[in-house]
Amino acid sequence: MSKQLTNKAIFGRRESEARSYCRGFDTVFASAKGAEMIDQSGKRYIDFLAGCSSLNYGHNDPDMKQALIAHIDTDGVAHGLDMHTAVKARFLETFEQHILQPRDMNHRVMFTGPTGANAVEAAMKIARKVTGRSNVICFTNGFHGVTQGALAATGNSYHRGGAGVTLNNVTRMPYDGYLGQSCDTTDFLEAMLRDRSSGMDAPAAILLETVQGEGGLNAASTSWLKRVAELAQEAGALLIIDDIQAGCGRTGSFFSFEEAGISPDIVTLAKSISGFGLPMGLVLVKPEHDIMGPAEHNGTFRGNTHAFVTATVAIEKFWSDDSLQQDILRRSNIISQGLQSLAAMVPEARLKGRGMMQGVDVGCGDLAGKICARAFEQGLIIETSGSEDQVVKILAPLTTTDSMLQRGLSILINAAQDVIGGHKFAAE
Amino acid sequence: MSKQLTNKAIFGRRESEARSYCRGFDTVFASAKGAEMIDQSGKRYIDFLAGCSSLNYGHNDPDMKQALIAHIDTDGVAHGLDMHTAVKARFLETFEQHILQPRDMNHRVMFTGPTGANAVEAAMKIARKVTGRSNVICFTNGFHGVTQGALAATGNSYHRGGAGVTLNNVTRMPYDGYLGQSCDTTDFLEAMLRDRSSGMDAPAAILLETVQGEGGLNAASTSWLKRVAELAQEAGALLIIDDIQAGCGRTGSFFSFEEAGISPDIVTLAKSISGFGLPMGLVLVKPEHDIMGPAEHNGTFRGNTHAFVTATVAIEKFWSDDSLQQDILRRSNIISQGLQSLAAMVPEARLKGRGMMQGVDVGCGDLAGKICARAFEQGLIIETSGSEDQVVKILAPLTTTDSMLQRGLSILINAAQDVIGGHKFAAE
Amino acid sequence: MSKQLTNKAIFGRRESEARSYCRGFDTVFASAKGAEMIDQSGKRYIDFLAGCSSLNYGHNDPDMKQALIAHIDTDGVAHGLDMHTAVKARFLETFEQHILQPRDMNHRVMFTGPTGANAVEAAMKIARKVTGRSNVICFTNGFHGVTQGALAATGNSYHRGGAGVTLNNVTRMPYDGYLGQSCDTTDFLEAMLRDRSSGMDAPAAILLETVQGEGGLNAASTSWLKRVAELAQEAGALLIIDDIQAGCGRTGSFFSFEEAGISPDIVTLAKSISGFGLPMGLVLVKPEHDIMGPAEHNGTFRGNTHAFVTATVAIEKFWSDDSLQQDILRRSNIISQGLQSLAAMVPEARLKGRGMMQGVDVGCGDLAGKICARAFEQGLIIETSGSEDQVVKILAPLTTTDSMLQRGLSILINAAQDVIGGHKFAAE
Amino acid sequence: MSKQLTNKAIFGRRESEARSYCRGFDTVFASAKGAEMIDQSGKRYIDFLAGCSSLNYGHNDPDMKQALIAHIDTDGVAHGLDMHTAVKARFLETFEQHILQPRDMNHRVMFTGPTGANAVEAAMKIARKVTGRSNVICFTNGFHGVTQGALAATGNSYHRGGAGVTLNNVTRMPYDGYLGQSCDTTDFLEAMLRDRSSGMDAPAAILLETVQGEGGLNAASTSWLKRVAELAQEAGALLIIDDIQAGCGRTGSFFSFEEAGISPDIVTLAKSISGFGLPMGLVLVKPEHDIMGPAEHNGTFRGNTHAFVTATVAIEKFWSDDSLQQDILRRSNIISQGLQSLAAMVPEARLKGRGMMQGVDVGCGDLAGKICARAFEQGLIIETSGSEDQVVKILAPLTTTDSMLQRGLSILINAAQDVIGGHKFAAE
Repeated sequence: MSKQLTNKAIFGRRESEARSYCRGFDTVFASAKGAEMIDQSGKRYIDFLAGCSSLNYGHNDPDMKQALIAHIDTDGVAHGLDMHTAVKARFLETFEQHILQPRDMNHRVMFTGPTGANAVEAAMKIARKVTGRSNVICFTNGFHGVTQGALAATGNSYHRGGAGVTLNNVTRMPYDGYLGQSCDTTDFLEAMLRDRSSGMDAPAAILLETVQGEGGLNAASTSWLKRVAELAQEAGALLIIDDIQAGCGRTGSFFSFEEAGISPDIVTLAKSISGFGLPMGLVLVKPEHDIMGPAEHNGTFRGNTHAFVTATVAIEKFWSDDSLQQDILRRSNIISQGLQSLAAMVPEARLKGRGMMQGVDVGCGDLAGKICARAFEQGLIIETSGSEDQVVKILAPLTTTDSMLQRGLSILINAAQDVIGGHKFAAE
Repeated sequence: MSKQLTNKAIFGRRESEARSYCRGFDTVFASAKGAEMIDQSGKRYIDFLAGCSSLNYGHNDPDMKQALIAHIDTDGVAHGLDMHTAVKARFLETFEQHILQPRDMNHRVMFTGPTGANAVEAAMKIARKVTGRSNVICFTNGFHGVTQGALAATGNSYHRGGAGVTLNNVTRMPYDGYLGQSCDTTDFLEAMLRDRSSGMDAPAAILLETVQGEGGLNAASTSWLKRVAELAQEAGALLIIDDIQAGCGRTGSFFSFEEAGISPDIVTLAKSISGFGLPMGLVLVKPEHDIMGPAEHNGTFRGNTHAFVTATVAIEKFWSDDSLQQDILRRSNIISQGLQSLAAMVPEARLKGRGMMQGVDVGCGDLAGKICARAFEQGLIIETSGSEDQVVKILAPLTTTDSMLQRGLSILINAAQDVIGGHKFAAE
Repeated sequence: MSKQLTNKAIFGRRESEARSYCRGFDTVFASAKGAEMIDQSGKRYIDFLAGCSSLNYGHNDPDMKQALIAHIDTDGVAHGLDMHTAVKARFLETFEQHILQPRDMNHRVMFTGPTGANAVEAAMKIARKVTGRSNVICFTNGFHGVTQGALAATGNSYHRGGAGVTLNNVTRMPYDGYLGQSCDTTDFLEAMLRDRSSGMDAPAAILLETVQGEGGLNAASTSWLKRVAELAQEAGALLIIDDIQAGCGRTGSFFSFEEAGISPDIVTLAKSISGFGLPMGLVLVKPEHDIMGPAEHNGTFRGNTHAFVTATVAIEKFWSDDSLQQDILRRSNIISQGLQSLAAMVPEARLKGRGMMQGVDVGCGDLAGKICARAFEQGLIIETSGSEDQVVKILAPLTTTDSMLQRGLSILINAAQDVIGGHKFAAE
Repeated sequence: MSKQLTNKAIFGRRESEARSYCRGFDTVFASAKGAEMIDQSGKRYIDFLAGCSSLNYGHNDPDMKQALIAHIDTDGVAHGLDMHTAVKARFLETFEQHILQPRDMNHRVMFTGPTGANAVEAAMKIARKVTGRSNVICFTNGFHGVTQGALAATGNSYHRGGAGVTLNNVTRMPYDGYLGQSCDTTDFLEAMLRDRSSGMDAPAAILLETVQGEGGLNAASTSWLKRVAELAQEAGALLIIDDIQAGCGRTGSFFSFEEAGISPDIVTLAKSISGFGLPMGLVLVKPEHDIMGPAEHNGTFRGNTHAFVTATVAIEKFWSDDSLQQDILRRSNIISQGLQSLAAMVPEARLKGRGMMQGVDVGCGDLAGKICARAFEQGLIIETSGSEDQVVKILAPLTTTDSMLQRGLSILINAAQDVIGGHKFAAE
């Protein structure tokens, strides 16, 4: 690669207006390691975004890196459609041994196109084929991707508006807490499911995230998740947990639903499953529902071979024992404490999320945006989420050292102080 | 990687029934180089499938390989969402210099999720947003992917049936030649577009492949393409060329539509754009139509950084001069000759396709399947296409040496001879 | 007409299996007068069904009858498409004078095809055209007809299942009381409307009945209706009151929403608007929303001329003063008392509805059905409603004399006693 | 009714802008008899529109009139939902005896809501339920009504645009003659049906008019209809003939498809089935497809009792022998001759239609409109049809006397002469 500094003019000249993160983080990145990204001027940034949870093990993990280089260097297959390859076999064996078997999951693995949206589309197809029904129940503030099938399930009106067509075959229900803490929203779901004149067509699936990453770090309670799982079963619907953002350790366990003790019929994974940030997506499906025909859902890049290499290392390295989970637990507490300090500065601020998927609802998107912008100036990459972008969200690599985590939190808190001084709160 | 032989049991135990190519090509591949794949027993296969045209420059091109290893080794960004990176800038500059500028194309580049289907979904969204219309005209036997928006435009009933929902907002028109050579199907398209009571809603776009790869290697004529382009303009619809399979040199020029002299409003690319088989997809859109808002169509893996590295090398190496195009022309002729020999053995067989995207329609899927199966036994990877899988299709790497091409063709012809001896033709 | 008795065999031989009321009321009716129907054997039945509220002024009102015969006898236009006719003018003038002006309503009258469903389809079209949006908010247990557009808004799964296609472009919200009396369901509606990530697309309209006739006589409260009207306005959505069953005096005032003091943008009327049971449907629309083009929504029978004749008499006779309303008030109380007696026999029975649109929820459809069947044997025509057909519903003509009302109620109560003796309640 | 002249101001003040025929025929009609309408000033108009073929037996036929008055006068049931009534029995018996049995049709009769659109919606539902498929094949320039399900099958973009939603679950095929006389459009239909990658989903039904009344009097040939019927059967699709405008004798036989010798699975009737212009609609369905459940498709006005009375008289009077058919044949020829005279005045004019459903395509809507407007001034009610309103269409009552037919044709020809003098043809 050229050592010459990149001229940003090319982006303005040739990259589509649809580009987005580069607008908030306006520099040119050159390299990245662990929890840090380095731009071409050599400035280092602590990464509290982690590729939107695609880099749970940080950037360029040395073991994955070494395995990937070795694979490439020896002319390992780079693209093999969905043929059998040695590296796919090894990934499956490792995933079976360290992830599925210890959790008593007999799910099959379906490699979809290497995006989360593609995995969600496949999951919805499976549920519709299994049940012969078309309606998928999804939830307020859910985010499942922006291809047309997945987009129907996504709540965000900005993304929905991009479709240019009506988005159908879903029914929207209120997520846990949507109507305040005193209202159990499963009561409404139950009523709609049991009433033959409710107007809700019999569902093929109930599709949800246990923590809504894009939706504002809303975390469903264990009791709510259990009740939804029971209602799905009662209604003859498949339960699909979209664990694309909350899975792969983000909430503390490999799957985000382990704590709730539920057994989803289908699970979608993407983002951090490759371990290295490489495109990869998959669907876990119980054997009795594994009825898609050969290539019925297909795609040229289903099964990214390079990703199998790094994913295998990631699972072996981080999920053979519980040390990472211990780290996550400790770091989650560090984050909670940091965020409490932040929340204390903002009237009516609320802590959101769980595990290493936490944030603070500061009440308005303008303030949250200013805090993140100020933090970036000070060397911290962090973004907002929620329907009004009102939640400052931390998605640091799970492997971020405690000290770097503390440093990042300090930058964030200082940024908030800088901004809040000049901010006029609604209540004032 | 372990040197121990892979046990295939893991695939049966844990991989979804949706797996497909591995069924026809039932071995475990370990490495690949140029136009060959090598299985774990050391057996070599000539690859006339090339990842369904994702490996136009063959497997593990040494220059791309070296650049990718260097990038990884120096902790180059592996995943950067759609932030600015040095390697993205270099890809854009190279693509502008060697591809867009020489062809007088002022299109912008939109990096979508790294699959062809995702690029098609984005293209349809753009056209719908630009025009405020929802209807997309597509064609018989077209294939554009299997996520819900793209699947609506795909003709194959097996894939459509997998949707589990009604596929809407498209109108199907007959492709060039669909009603025989004496019927110009654009007459029907014109009548439908001009008649205010035709029942065809005003189109947002006309979406097509210039050669239908999955549809049976149907190649549209230059005059037909020009007429469709004129009708799109007259109707206020955007012309979208899906060049995912036919682009990146497959038909002889970088874009498959160059010969026709048309200027599509939108072009979709994926498959071979990375050069190395890595997941990558993009949309080219004229600046006046580049109106998707920031992240309005988004996705975690939009812009695969590793793919930028290899794509840049691919373009510099193969598209700085016309030597590859000369090679393709010569190799296309070799393929034509080989296929004529094959066609001569089968009553009423027809040559299909153009460039290095050719095949023979042998009249029935059973025969075509047997030929491909026999060829695989003899060390050739090749598959069928078409509505009845009746077309034996060659998608060899464009860089396959003439001698290896000849060797592959010999295997194919011998396989056909072996099979035809025992085959009973319908007319007999 | 022949005096010979009709042989019912023709119905079995030639009428479709879709026939329905004739199954429960298994006799052949020959004539009808006031609140009674007479079968061909001369047996008289008190009619507590009144053509599902299409005969609010009873059968064959003598004044309407005389006017209609005079019209026919003098070769008055029977079918005039939507040309100007003298009788249409007179209907419009009368409707303006006695209905619209006294209520300060400046609505325009759109004559649709002569069914309620057609009026609902037209209303939905208007709202969609006015707003440029497609989503219509409707409610649990709502019933709006069974043509495809209206059926999407209807909650009943049996009717929905008949569509054979997915029913789209609506969002279902919980009706007043759906989640128990302690939950104000407008809170959920408000949250969904205000939240940009709720997943509910911006609504063209909010469509509702103030009392859900088919849905089980659920009556919305005045405060709930006011709040919904406010939310519609805030959201830029049109408020459509479907007053097909509850209008024309059924609840005590001409329109069912008068008590709530709201001003709907659109009102649909059908059923009793002709006064005589003749097919007629119309839409009232505020002038600023009267933007459908000439014949944009059309139909051969829009504006049934015979119905204009009888409708004019009906309005002049019954709505020139408040005597009918006084009668309805008194009769509503008689009905309430009768139903309380009935309810007292059934554990946990609940009174439902308001005005002369009342019933008793007896807890299960089996019991309600048995009561109605027994009542029919005793000379009373009455049916059930509700999602489980669990509500015994009284829709007597508004003009039923007090004494006949008492007689009908006695039959009903006796029928209930007969049946309840042999019925085993769930709680027992 | 008041003898005072009607003031048209009420229409401007209170009738919706959606009103339409009254704009072209701008007078107030008071009475009508046979083939004439009389306005309130006493001016007589020959009616070549006949309620868009709803008045095939003319206005106020004396026998139907007498029967209807007798029914009303004796308190015959006016509205009976779908209960058994003596008059319904008599209609069914008469329809069976004179219509179904002589044509060897064992169809069942389903009474739908009393509009053509409602009958079409029911027909589509039946086909979808029988086949378990959703796609309905319909044709260019078809018109089937404007409620949402029927509107999807209607070709006219003005009506389609009124929907405000995307119209789905149909596929549009070219009607007979759409691509010129040399192209047999069933070849395309056959190809699409047989090709598993055509993109056309397996059809529930093929729905068509044998003569497209609103579409411009396009008449399908017998051979084309036979081929479509064969293809429907081969595809497992139901054949639905929409005979709402072309049935009830309009083309010469009771059903318009008799000449073609085909046996539709489903037939829709409305318009002239009541004989008197009263709202009535029905579906004929073969017994093996009569599977809609009780009230699965319902509607308050299904089965208009007054219409049964007049329909029975109409069938007995006009279809007991072949005298009407002889009259239609003779009158069709009179019309053909008159239209030839008209066509001779207009360069490239074309005769359209068949039976008493004929017209002239004068090449542009402006000219056709002027001719009709001038004719109205001279006492003739006549309208245009076709995608550009370019066809002057005659739909006179079948019972119009030969002499009055001649008088009407003279007015038309004179009107054309008046107008053509001042018209500039495109070719000039």
